[in-house]
Amino acid sequence: MSIHDMIASHPDVAGNLNDALATAVRHSMFCAVICTSCADACSSEDMDMRQCIRTCMDCADVCTATMKVAARRTGSNEAVLRAMLTACIETCEICAAECARHDHDHCRRCAEMCRECAEDCRKALATI
Amino acid sequence: MSIHDMIASHPDVAGNLNDALATAVRHSMFCAVICTSCADACSSEDMDMRQCIRTCMDCADVCTATMKVAARRTGSNEAVLRAMLTACIETCEICAAECARHDHDHCRRCAEMCRECAEDCRKALATI
Amino acid sequence: MSIHDMIASHPDVAGNLNDALATAVRHSMFCAVICTSCADACSSEDMDMRQCIRTCMDCADVCTATMKVAARRTGSNEAVLRAMLTACIETCEICAAECARHDHDHCRRCAEMCRECAEDCRKALATI
Amino acid sequence: MSIHDMIASHPDVAGNLNDALATAVRHSMFCAVICTSCADACSSEDMDMRQCIRTCMDCADVCTATMKVAARRTGSNEAVLRAMLTACIETCEICAAECARHDHDHCRRCAEMCRECAEDCRKALATI
Repeated sequence: MSIHDMIASHPDVAGNLNDALATAVRHSMFCAVICTSCADACSSEDMDMRQCIRTCMDCADVCTATMKVAARRTGSNEAVLRAMLTACIETCEICAAECARHDHDHCRRCAEMCRECAEDCRKALATI
Repeated sequence: MSIHDMIASHPDVAGNLNDALATAVRHSMFCAVICTSCADACSSEDMDMRQCIRTCMDCADVCTATMKVAARRTGSNEAVLRAMLTACIETCEICAAECARHDHDHCRRCAEMCRECAEDCRKALATI
Repeated sequence: MSIHDMIASHPDVAGNLNDALATAVRHSMFCAVICTSCADACSSEDMDMRQCIRTCMDCADVCTATMKVAARRTGSNEAVLRAMLTACIETCEICAAECARHDHDHCRRCAEMCRECAEDCRKALATI
Repeated sequence: MSIHDMIASHPDVAGNLNDALATAVRHSMFCAVICTSCADACSSEDMDMRQCIRTCMDCADVCTATMKVAARRTGSNEAVLRAMLTACIETCEICAAECARHDHDHCRRCAEMCRECAEDCRKALATI
């Protein structure tokens, strides 16, 4: 299923798709699940992972809101979209930095996803 | 980014991945965004789409919860997982049936996604 | 702010409010925040709270979806509402039982909230 | 159930509660439900409410993320908290302005809730 094709089928988009914004929707969607999974995996590790659980849970919540706000094309809500992309960039970079401090495979994957999501949100923000 | 590889890296999964359940996570994740987009697109159509907006918004919320619950592997919460997969199957089938009544491209795509998500949740439910 | 008055102002409700269902919205809303807070507090405790973190995080997600689905009155989506109230009752009871096993003040409060939410969802379910 | 008492029972808070922040959690929680209800009620009105549906749905999603991020006290994630409170203030003010343009009782209530939530988030932001 293509997020890009779906958003392109909105009656007000009509083939005039913001490709960078659709990519930000796709990757904040993935990042919401990856961070949910990393918070959960961290809580099963034997060492103290409380700061990483915190940043991953916050990042999952911010990405979930971002993917929903950024998916909409009815009317216009650009200031909110900018505020959420900005919040998502900051949240993902902080989560990536925290995950990068740990040697777990799930943290390595989560850090990579967060960095990619932050970069895509930054590219999308530049188009609005 | 692979949802399957991410969940497989949870310390308690350790290579023993429930493949069907990881697929249900992936598709409830996509379905949450597709339904969010379809509810939004429906609100921009000139005809009366209120029932379709309702079923799509409900489906987006149920899929969002399902993807998060189904992504976790710490400890055990099988009764809750079963209840959410069951709710997700019903919600997706109802949303697919409503979207199938409309001739919009976004509704056709959403119906297809919902049917696929319902089928994947049914396969995952059979494994638990 | 009254959830009951808000839902009563929906054009299709027109003074014909399902009081039990509005109470279920109110308490699944509170339960979503209380469980989010309990999962977070549990991750700061020194003992092993991983099962409690799991059940609280799942409960927060299920309650969040329930409060949104149960708040809507446009058209009709009764099968989905029943499925989510059913899932919410089960999830809250399991979370209450897990929290009741621990001696922390936040777990005691969370167990109480979950029991109340389960009871309200059961009463609401009986009206649909 | 008191959100303030619940957060005060977190082991790292230990009676040292940020009262303004707990109030922001409480009101973003209410605002998430009120906006969900208003978007739904708007979709049942006979006139064109598409811009109001859009701003209410976005506001519900941003408030849901804000209430979760702001409820956590484990470790520290102040930059993310600031980014979400900032996004929530902007989103609530835009939603309040849009709802204030309409003569429906649900829009009047939603505008009032959004203004209150924006004000509480602003007070909380000043404390961090």
